[in-house]
Amino acid sequence: MSVFVPTPASVPPRDNVLRLREITNSPNYHALTPLAFILRAAQIYPDKIALIHTDVEQPVVYNYAIWAQRIQNFAYALLKFGIQPGDRVGVISPNAPLIADAHHGVIAARAVVTTINTRLKPSEVAYIVEHSQCKLLFVDYEYTSLVAGLNVPVIISNDTGRAGDPYEEFLAGGREFSKERGWQGLEPETDENKGAVLCYTSGTTGRPKGVLTTLRGTYLACIANAYEAQLNRTSTYLWILPMFHAAGWTFPFATVFAFSTQITLRTVNYTHIWNHLLESGVTHYCAAPTVQIGLINDSLAKKPTQRVTTIVAGAAPTAHTIAGLEKIGIYPVHVYGLTETYGPFTRNYAQPSWDSLTLDQRARLMARQGNAFATAEDARVVYPYPEGVTDGPLVDVPRDGKTVGEIVTRGNIVMKEYFRDPEATKKAFAGGSFHTGDLAVMHPNGTIAIMDRSKDIIISGGENASSLAIEQELSTHPDVLEVSVVARQHIKWGERPMAFVVLHPQRVDTWKGRYHEFAQALKTHAKSRLPGFACPEWVEVVPELPKTSTGKILKLELRKIVAKL
Amino acid sequence: MSVFVPTPASVPPRDNVLRLREITNSPNYHALTPLAFILRAAQIYPDKIALIHTDVEQPVVYNYAIWAQRIQNFAYALLKFGIQPGDRVGVISPNAPLIADAHHGVIAARAVVTTINTRLKPSEVAYIVEHSQCKLLFVDYEYTSLVAGLNVPVIISNDTGRAGDPYEEFLAGGREFSKERGWQGLEPETDENKGAVLCYTSGTTGRPKGVLTTLRGTYLACIANAYEAQLNRTSTYLWILPMFHAAGWTFPFATVFAFSTQITLRTVNYTHIWNHLLESGVTHYCAAPTVQIGLINDSLAKKPTQRVTTIVAGAAPTAHTIAGLEKIGIYPVHVYGLTETYGPFTRNYAQPSWDSLTLDQRARLMARQGNAFATAEDARVVYPYPEGVTDGPLVDVPRDGKTVGEIVTRGNIVMKEYFRDPEATKKAFAGGSFHTGDLAVMHPNGTIAIMDRSKDIIISGGENASSLAIEQELSTHPDVLEVSVVARQHIKWGERPMAFVVLHPQRVDTWKGRYHEFAQALKTHAKSRLPGFACPEWVEVVPELPKTSTGKILKLELRKIVAKL
Repeated sequence: MSVFVPTPASVPPRDNVLRLREITNSPNYHALTPLAFILRAAQIYPDKIALIHTDVEQPVVYNYAIWAQRIQNFAYALLKFGIQPGDRVGVISPNAPLIADAHHGVIAARAVVTTINTRLKPSEVAYIVEHSQCKLLFVDYEYTSLVAGLNVPVIISNDTGRAGDPYEEFLAGGREFSKERGWQGLEPETDENKGAVLCYTSGTTGRPKGVLTTLRGTYLACIANAYEAQLNRTSTYLWILPMFHAAGWTFPFATVFAFSTQITLRTVNYTHIWNHLLESGVTHYCAAPTVQIGLINDSLAKKPTQRVTTIVAGAAPTAHTIAGLEKIGIYPVHVYGLTETYGPFTRNYAQPSWDSLTLDQRARLMARQGNAFATAEDARVVYPYPEGVTDGPLVDVPRDGKTVGEIVTRGNIVMKEYFRDPEATKKAFAGGSFHTGDLAVMHPNGTIAIMDRSKDIIISGGENASSLAIEQELSTHPDVLEVSVVARQHIKWGERPMAFVVLHPQRVDTWKGRYHEFAQALKTHAKSRLPGFACPEWVEVVPELPKTSTGKILKLELRKIVAKL
Repeated sequence: MSVFVPTPASVPPRDNVLRLREITNSPNYHALTPLAFILRAAQIYPDKIALIHTDVEQPVVYNYAIWAQRIQNFAYALLKFGIQPGDRVGVISPNAPLIADAHHGVIAARAVVTTINTRLKPSEVAYIVEHSQCKLLFVDYEYTSLVAGLNVPVIISNDTGRAGDPYEEFLAGGREFSKERGWQGLEPETDENKGAVLCYTSGTTGRPKGVLTTLRGTYLACIANAYEAQLNRTSTYLWILPMFHAAGWTFPFATVFAFSTQITLRTVNYTHIWNHLLESGVTHYCAAPTVQIGLINDSLAKKPTQRVTTIVAGAAPTAHTIAGLEKIGIYPVHVYGLTETYGPFTRNYAQPSWDSLTLDQRARLMARQGNAFATAEDARVVYPYPEGVTDGPLVDVPRDGKTVGEIVTRGNIVMKEYFRDPEATKKAFAGGSFHTGDLAVMHPNGTIAIMDRSKDIIISGGENASSLAIEQELSTHPDVLEVSVVARQHIKWGERPMAFVVLHPQRVDTWKGRYHEFAQALKTHAKSRLPGFACPEWVEVVPELPKTSTGKILKLELRKIVAKL
């Protein structure tokens, strides 16, 4: 690390004015924008470490002063390139400085940062680039094959932070173009309802949809995330969650609001993660339950000296996971949300009375999705529209903990729209609320609990197997387009996983009439990746999976099928 | 306490829907309003203690469920009375449930809560009531003489929380009027720029001016205060700062956003304060340095078992005060602001490097007003307009720590206006920023330091005497209208306080030609209230004090006079 010196273009001038230009005459109003955060951080804690990137040959570390300058260079370089307000700028990158920079730099140029999942196929990337009409793409060197042949200018990052890296040259060009006009030379955005981040959901039906967030929503969601996670200037946030996933739950900005230090990791590598937890003072990270399980079971796992808070979403953490985490001083905060809700929209709020409960009782309560987040408007559970009805007033289900309805959300922490898809937007916003497609009950105390998810745990031979985790592993098989796993009664083990699989269109012919062979192949694949109790006992190939109007798999329907077997 | 049972009207129904009605069809926008906080708190932590009021004959304690119901009743009672959106509703109360309720209840009725200083004279109260055009006044029993003869309906609170109290009857009437329509029966405010709190500054020149804040500004300031003070659901906030002072720095709402417990104290009584610090688990309080000094020097002072954070404003805490506080486990956060900036607008942000400094060095840095607050836009230090110029672009002073200019602030955390005073508003907002009237320098690192205040400390015989503290004591003399104290060289003590006094208009004739006698009388008064080193050595009666355009006393001018003596 001691040999790293930021490129000259990254060094701010001495008399740096870290303030946006005032272009309106409103003394008592300013547009909410997350760009304010990096400016404040660089003003107040210029020497504090902002970004650490070490799991690479050539590690880099930036303090807030230097990072803010790089972001300013980024913005000027975009202007130099010809990026106009509202243009989309794409980024294909693992967690690395490039994508962290881009979140702030693109917004500083009043453009929309379009983060693209690195795990997609070239054809899917091509669709997103085309649909979002990206004017420029930033691509990490490892993912250049994803954009081969695309007719869009590409800036490649070799993730070195050193002179000679095309990305660094790009930033240096921005600095030069700025003619040292600094932040005051950039046109500030005055409309807080303009787009901020565009993030395509990995749609399970049809084409992916582009979720466009606003500056106002991002600002408010960030503050909520920083507040709820109790992030502050003494915090160190470790990037395990990909930044391209659901706009990184706004943590690319929330960490900066809080003056925290971020550590980026290119891959989910448990050795690296544990090294950072034990040696780098990590206090916060976001991750899905499967990653938490991997963390607990890693051979390096032991209690860090600092208290660690982990934000868990995607599925409820099990009692086993909670106990495993708390034993090593990691305290989970269970949140729920979607890309369309800027990530977390509800949180499971611990109650003082839980202190006297057993772990199992507490885990059951912690599994609930809870109540609306700090700056969110309400989350409700409503009756689905009757067959044939697509709009109209929404009616709450009774608060009985039994009646299943759909979670709908409203307010500032709901996306602006599905980009260039007014029809899907209209459908998702039917009745004046966003339809999550998640089925849930409302408990008498007003807390929401997703039904489809609480049953995702398969108790197989006394072990808790997460159907989500199994699905994730099965879906790595190249012939699997989509998979859903539910519990099926088993005479010996109590329950065993049953997988419903939709074959990849290009492989349907290959396996035609040989589904039994495919099932064997998938089981073999599973055995190499999952503990025995989590391997599917049954594999059923189906033409499609039952889904809600917004594309969520209806596990309840699958369970009905299984119950009849 | 065990005998206290809230009035029947305070008990919420079982199926209480703690949610505002959705009256617009915007799935992705909701107006920012601090009313959201009490609803969330009652949803998520209904059983948590919200409000404790014990320094009275008949103590009361409310949990969030019951308190939210009382606030709902308050709103309905206002509607029953005929209060219309935007109407002003006045409150004259010490820190007690009445004024805490009113902050939320008045806003729930879409009216503007107008908090009036209990220390004013009847004629001043009459002016404020008349100027604000209050439709209804809530008056604590101790202050009814302040409103005698006013032609405005008054609801008196005997501060009992028991049936029979006129205020409780008022709330019960609201409940009845609601016909159990609950929160859904109240019309929500959809314009976040509507007025929230109207708070008159104790103007030093001319009539007091009414500072009107907005719902949006209050919402954002609250979150900043909760975040900066690290208030959360485990916090207990003790009310020492009067809620009527600068809208209680938004803490009437910030504490609720954080799900904290509030303890209200009718008076600043050190015995009560220490009892609460030691016995009630108080974690936070706001207070001026003089109160901090009183706290440290109280005979009951000792280190509480919990960590305590105190937010200090009004003047910078001295090294002596910081040391005194930290010795007993109380950690000061130094903030700066005005009523016009919702209370705190800047904060002194501690730097990691300060850990290696001596207390005196650290205190000197902690005395600076620092940088803009979490959700505030920038604070700048600009050159005053030349003589005769009243508007135009504002030019920053150099960041040299030497050039004195005026602090100006901008953005969401700046008041909406001086109510019914477009001329004063225009003047205060000249050049597109709010002019604080406070003179300061900008240090090379971008931190603001008020000059007029940093010199307020008088080093008398090696003791640090706060001129602010001396002024506060001298101003308790009934014949003093206004007083300002500065240091004057003294051959024996180094420095000694010199007081410049403006006599109360009704006493000018009394002391005419007898200023020497008055000086003796004031010195005698001082000796009974201040340590010897802090007593004024000289008292000068003057017709008026030199002031800035916004009414701040120009101590620099007084120091110039003293320098010539």
